[in-house]
Amino acid sequence: MQGTLEKEIGAPGAPFYLAQADECSVFSTAHANKLPVLLKGPTGCGKTRFVAHMAALLNRPLYTVACHDDLAAADLIGRFLLKGGETVWIDGPLTRAVREGAICYLDEVVEARKDVTVVLHPLTDDRRILPIDRTGEELNAAEGFMLVASYNPGYQNILKTLKPSTRQRFISVEFDFPKPDLEAEIVSAESGLEINRVKPLVRLAGKFRSLKGQDIEEGVSTRLVVYTATLIAQGMNVDRAIRAAMVEPLTDDEDVKLGLLDIVAAVLG
Amino acid sequence: MQGTLEKEIGAPGAPFYLAQADECSVFSTAHANKLPVLLKGPTGCGKTRFVAHMAALLNRPLYTVACHDDLAAADLIGRFLLKGGETVWIDGPLTRAVREGAICYLDEVVEARKDVTVVLHPLTDDRRILPIDRTGEELNAAEGFMLVASYNPGYQNILKTLKPSTRQRFISVEFDFPKPDLEAEIVSAESGLEINRVKPLVRLAGKFRSLKGQDIEEGVSTRLVVYTATLIAQGMNVDRAIRAAMVEPLTDDEDVKLGLLDIVAAVLG
Amino acid sequence: MQGTLEKEIGAPGAPFYLAQADECSVFSTAHANKLPVLLKGPTGCGKTRFVAHMAALLNRPLYTVACHDDLAAADLIGRFLLKGGETVWIDGPLTRAVREGAICYLDEVVEARKDVTVVLHPLTDDRRILPIDRTGEELNAAEGFMLVASYNPGYQNILKTLKPSTRQRFISVEFDFPKPDLEAEIVSAESGLEINRVKPLVRLAGKFRSLKGQDIEEGVSTRLVVYTATLIAQGMNVDRAIRAAMVEPLTDDEDVKLGLLDIVAAVLG
Amino acid sequence: MQGTLEKEIGAPGAPFYLAQADECSVFSTAHANKLPVLLKGPTGCGKTRFVAHMAALLNRPLYTVACHDDLAAADLIGRFLLKGGETVWIDGPLTRAVREGAICYLDEVVEARKDVTVVLHPLTDDRRILPIDRTGEELNAAEGFMLVASYNPGYQNILKTLKPSTRQRFISVEFDFPKPDLEAEIVSAESGLEINRVKPLVRLAGKFRSLKGQDIEEGVSTRLVVYTATLIAQGMNVDRAIRAAMVEPLTDDEDVKLGLLDIVAAVLG
Amino acid sequence: MQGTLEKEIGAPGAPFYLAQADECSVFSTAHANKLPVLLKGPTGCGKTRFVAHMAALLNRPLYTVACHDDLAAADLIGRFLLKGGETVWIDGPLTRAVREGAICYLDEVVEARKDVTVVLHPLTDDRRILPIDRTGEELNAAEGFMLVASYNPGYQNILKTLKPSTRQRFISVEFDFPKPDLEAEIVSAESGLEINRVKPLVRLAGKFRSLKGQDIEEGVSTRLVVYTATLIAQGMNVDRAIRAAMVEPLTDDEDVKLGLLDIVAAVLG
Amino acid sequence: MQGTLEKEIGAPGAPFYLAQADECSVFSTAHANKLPVLLKGPTGCGKTRFVAHMAALLNRPLYTVACHDDLAAADLIGRFLLKGGETVWIDGPLTRAVREGAICYLDEVVEARKDVTVVLHPLTDDRRILPIDRTGEELNAAEGFMLVASYNPGYQNILKTLKPSTRQRFISVEFDFPKPDLEAEIVSAESGLEINRVKPLVRLAGKFRSLKGQDIEEGVSTRLVVYTATLIAQGMNVDRAIRAAMVEPLTDDEDVKLGLLDIVAAVLG
Repeated sequence: MQGTLEKEIGAPGAPFYLAQADECSVFSTAHANKLPVLLKGPTGCGKTRFVAHMAALLNRPLYTVACHDDLAAADLIGRFLLKGGETVWIDGPLTRAVREGAICYLDEVVEARKDVTVVLHPLTDDRRILPIDRTGEELNAAEGFMLVASYNPGYQNILKTLKPSTRQRFISVEFDFPKPDLEAEIVSAESGLEINRVKPLVRLAGKFRSLKGQDIEEGVSTRLVVYTATLIAQGMNVDRAIRAAMVEPLTDDEDVKLGLLDIVAAVLG
Repeated sequence: MQGTLEKEIGAPGAPFYLAQADECSVFSTAHANKLPVLLKGPTGCGKTRFVAHMAALLNRPLYTVACHDDLAAADLIGRFLLKGGETVWIDGPLTRAVREGAICYLDEVVEARKDVTVVLHPLTDDRRILPIDRTGEELNAAEGFMLVASYNPGYQNILKTLKPSTRQRFISVEFDFPKPDLEAEIVSAESGLEINRVKPLVRLAGKFRSLKGQDIEEGVSTRLVVYTATLIAQGMNVDRAIRAAMVEPLTDDEDVKLGLLDIVAAVLG
Repeated sequence: MQGTLEKEIGAPGAPFYLAQADECSVFSTAHANKLPVLLKGPTGCGKTRFVAHMAALLNRPLYTVACHDDLAAADLIGRFLLKGGETVWIDGPLTRAVREGAICYLDEVVEARKDVTVVLHPLTDDRRILPIDRTGEELNAAEGFMLVASYNPGYQNILKTLKPSTRQRFISVEFDFPKPDLEAEIVSAESGLEINRVKPLVRLAGKFRSLKGQDIEEGVSTRLVVYTATLIAQGMNVDRAIRAAMVEPLTDDEDVKLGLLDIVAAVLG
Repeated sequence: MQGTLEKEIGAPGAPFYLAQADECSVFSTAHANKLPVLLKGPTGCGKTRFVAHMAALLNRPLYTVACHDDLAAADLIGRFLLKGGETVWIDGPLTRAVREGAICYLDEVVEARKDVTVVLHPLTDDRRILPIDRTGEELNAAEGFMLVASYNPGYQNILKTLKPSTRQRFISVEFDFPKPDLEAEIVSAESGLEINRVKPLVRLAGKFRSLKGQDIEEGVSTRLVVYTATLIAQGMNVDRAIRAAMVEPLTDDEDVKLGLLDIVAAVLG
Repeated sequence: MQGTLEKEIGAPGAPFYLAQADECSVFSTAHANKLPVLLKGPTGCGKTRFVAHMAALLNRPLYTVACHDDLAAADLIGRFLLKGGETVWIDGPLTRAVREGAICYLDEVVEARKDVTVVLHPLTDDRRILPIDRTGEELNAAEGFMLVASYNPGYQNILKTLKPSTRQRFISVEFDFPKPDLEAEIVSAESGLEINRVKPLVRLAGKFRSLKGQDIEEGVSTRLVVYTATLIAQGMNVDRAIRAAMVEPLTDDEDVKLGLLDIVAAVLG
Repeated sequence: MQGTLEKEIGAPGAPFYLAQADECSVFSTAHANKLPVLLKGPTGCGKTRFVAHMAALLNRPLYTVACHDDLAAADLIGRFLLKGGETVWIDGPLTRAVREGAICYLDEVVEARKDVTVVLHPLTDDRRILPIDRTGEELNAAEGFMLVASYNPGYQNILKTLKPSTRQRFISVEFDFPKPDLEAEIVSAESGLEINRVKPLVRLAGKFRSLKGQDIEEGVSTRLVVYTATLIAQGMNVDRAIRAAMVEPLTDDEDVKLGLLDIVAAVLG
């Protein structure tokens, strides 16, 4: 299995990551050819961990920026601050990555303000430059610099989408929740709960995910399955742990909760 | 009864709190395993008091932030201020909590601006870091740090919801108004009114709460029952106290007020 | 009559106020028990005067803040200003009231920005604290501090309402225009016009108020009756004074004005 | 005729103003009794000139503020400015008027931001105070201070209206275009065109005003009649002058222009 | 022909301008009588050139401000800037024009923010003053100062119109594209292309302008005809030049382009 | 073939560019005659590369500005910054281009804020001036200065269009994707993949582009074909490379992806 295989080549000290498919080699090839990469996939399926893992494998520093409605270009590039009566320029995380040849990871890039996505353009074509209008500098990206962005296609709406002129600057890699065996292995490793007690939780997560778009907005993440297993490993009652970490986090609707609890009873019987 | 039981183990000097169910042990387990917690429940049912109580039990400092429309990431993280011609960094409450290993409680987190919820992400996964873009610092949360958020599912609307990518980072605990006997005990302890005079007020509160979503937007809070009992304990006429503290605060509609006063007459009559 | 009665106990030097009902004793009880108070009632019925009167009676300083769309938390709490190259903190009116144990009166509180109402929360529960994020201070309200807010239920609209989580933190007292005899007494005292010449104006105001919600947005305030009586006391023709101070201020619609003038003729004719 | 009469008592040096009715005595009475005044009337009918005239008659300085969408409270009250490394307070026009006992005239007050209208409240009741939150000062209005506001009821729309709580703080005086004989006298005096050549222009203005709300948004102002007469007095052809100063300023619609020119032909023959 | 006539009296060194009608004398009369002027007309018909021409004829400096959505009053009036630790006032273009007795030309005035149009009011009535609230100054306009504004009635929409209270402060002069013979003369003079080769282009422009409001938003400007003639004079193929400078600038719709090219073929054969 | 021809005359060291038609000579003529140029065409068809190529050919410096929602006039023109207690003016990219006689390229100009497009007006007519309101300077564009803008007509929407008054100031040149033979030549040169292996990819791109407006928002760019060829040249499986660089970047819809993969199978067999 490729996941197991790629884990073998993981650098010692790299964050634990079990590959789902060939995402590691696509990422490496893109890095070697200076192509930016876009990671598409649902909440909590492991995109952030994957990038941390690859940064360690490729031996590059990693700058992660969680994007949001108010994230502006200056938050990425830098600002002038007053020090001793002087204005001093302070690099933002993108500028630091460009100077150091690091990986810059923009998590949920569609959430950022429009000026952010456009700042990325000259960094994502063959020029690989970052013009800093405020200082008049124009930086050439250092060897090893790579731009990575992620977004969740399930959230796409009319107001928040990547413009084709931005999107067509990235190689895209699709993510999904890990396959059951792989997910059980991950959850057991993260929570310390033995794998046979994890497997029913993963089966339950699969059932919940099939309800996405009907009763619940988003399927249960691997992270929540880890939470549940952690609570159980601490001695909490299984039903109570599932309610706290797999049911209540998904919905506020009493009817939907009852439906989910019925599934719990059916699966865990 | 669990509420009484848990009260027994309360630290001396901890704010008075009567547990409704197993919320104290779920919270303690989450704290021990570095899992963030989301408290769901209606206005005035005791969530804030519960967090103060748990912080005392766990012997952790508590930073409470009341979230609102204009609360921005900088309000949590900190700002540069001018001192003697220098810009000096001043930590916000979240940063202080991260440094000191305190509990940071974000009350009504859905009210905050979007950039706030995203700041929380790297603190709520296994990295437990707080990147401070303005200073270039990246803080590791001190031992004992815990993030707690609350929200009222009754207010949920289309514009203001927690994104699944935020919500699935928390263990969720549901709250409701205390059961009648417990609520009477609480109100009597808070107001100084003897318990037999409190019980009809609690019965009345139960009747009013059953009207929620029909004539009134939100059921009467335990706080208002305490107010009413306080006014009565000061010698105010019972009907007058109920009008001032349990009827007028719920509605401006004259017809609804008359309906509520009819219920008062029927219950206390 | 209670109004007369309470006037008797008014402190010498307190602003003139004739009580409509038991509002003075409810307010005093709330103050003694550290409960915040919300005054509900129409424009110009005497809420502001009442608070000034009570502050004098209770011998507390009074800070009044007229709330509006752009009133932000910083306007209440305070700001840093540059003085001699240093940033110096300047207390806002709420902070001053908290430090001095004064009454802080927020007039038309629903008009304020949302961050204001939430600032009030920790001051209105048993903690009675004001956290000042900008300085890292947490003030305990001094003995005697009281929070009073007012709003006009007639204006309530979907965008501007008090959230239950704010509203259920206040004892509520309802106000209305004074009863005719009381209003005539007030208007005569304020304008210097003898009471027999005031009474028809008060009768006319009553007629106009009954049209509220039909032809006019809001009934005529006691203040406008005082204006009218003042103009008449200065020798202005009665009809001219009524037009300038009781008709033109209510409407711009020519047909509605004619209707009001017909009522004037019928009542005073 | 009252207009002539009042002109007689005009102070030497006061701006030329012909009274339409008793507006001068109502204004004087309001000033003497410290009552604020609201002037209602269409564009260009002489409200601004009237206030300048009354300020001269009453021997008070005059501060005029043209209100607009971005006029904020600080524009009226004042601001801190940096001077020599110190922040220095600079009074705004309202504050200056309050200190000097001047007349402060807020032209088109409905255009101002909401925080402006609320600033006016404590100045328009018997307290006559101006609290300056930024400095912590509370000014008592000097003897002679008067607040005057104007607005054009023809513009009233749902978004921009005076709230009753503001409006009911003013005595209201209605203005309209001057009666034909009076308007001819004014136009002749202002333009230097002899009165017999002015009269047809005034007749034409009357015809145009009767179309308001049908083909044109607002009737032609006295100012435009003065412009027209000025151009004619300079030797411009009458038809050309009317087109440039009475037709083109009213509309861009070619059909409406033709209709207006037909009226010109009919009236001036 | 008046155009030719007025050209004769042009000052040597004044920008080339061929008058369409009596606009030069109306402008001169307005200037002599201190009346502001509003120029109405389509894009690229010569309004800006006309103002430059008149400023030279009248021997006045000219300040031109291109108005836009974000143009605020401070952009016209001036600002405080920090210099050597002091705040220093810097005049804006309107203030400079007022001080120097220059012509201030506000191009596309309807695009400006609302606070701009209101700043103009005290400058456009007989007071001719510019109050500068920030400094407390009140400037009297120097002899020769004149305010000129332009707008394009074709763009008028509900959100962006001149309020009657602003518009009725200006004499209005209507502009249109020059008559064919005049336009050919202008284009030939500007491009250096001989007049017989220009005439078909002018004929074509006339055809295109008749489509305004149907297939194209705005008729082709004289400027574009000059561009086309310039390209041809440089040796570019006529059809190619027309496509680049008269067709592509008008539309992106392929069908409309084909329609325009059909007209080109019909007119130029 | 013209493309080949023009390449011959390319300056040594100029960025590689294969002309599609006569765009190079139109651009040169416009530059020689000081006419601004607007480039219209889809995402990733080579507009940016074309401008870089022409700047090198014409031996002019190039300033490129990627426009976005928050790009304001000051970002182009410059700002004051504090240095050593002084405010120092820093030129923006447009000002630098104007001073140096460079080419200023505004990529996706319709995305910029409205104040930007209007700043361009005095630079695009015969005045060729840049007024800098903040400093009171008025710059004459140096010899060789040229303004170039681009936009993608496919994105045009109601809110974001170039006003005719801006658009009619530019010569327009239309771009499209290169013809198949030319595109294959470009992709092979850029990716290092031999031309026979590139040709099927170009054929596939043509198929995908014909779906624009039906299943996909925008046709696949030449850039993505280069990405795909690069991955293949690195040894990646052809189908995998196409999925990562030509399918996933176009859509998130699973059905559309399957449709695209069917086309891949049909074309590549």
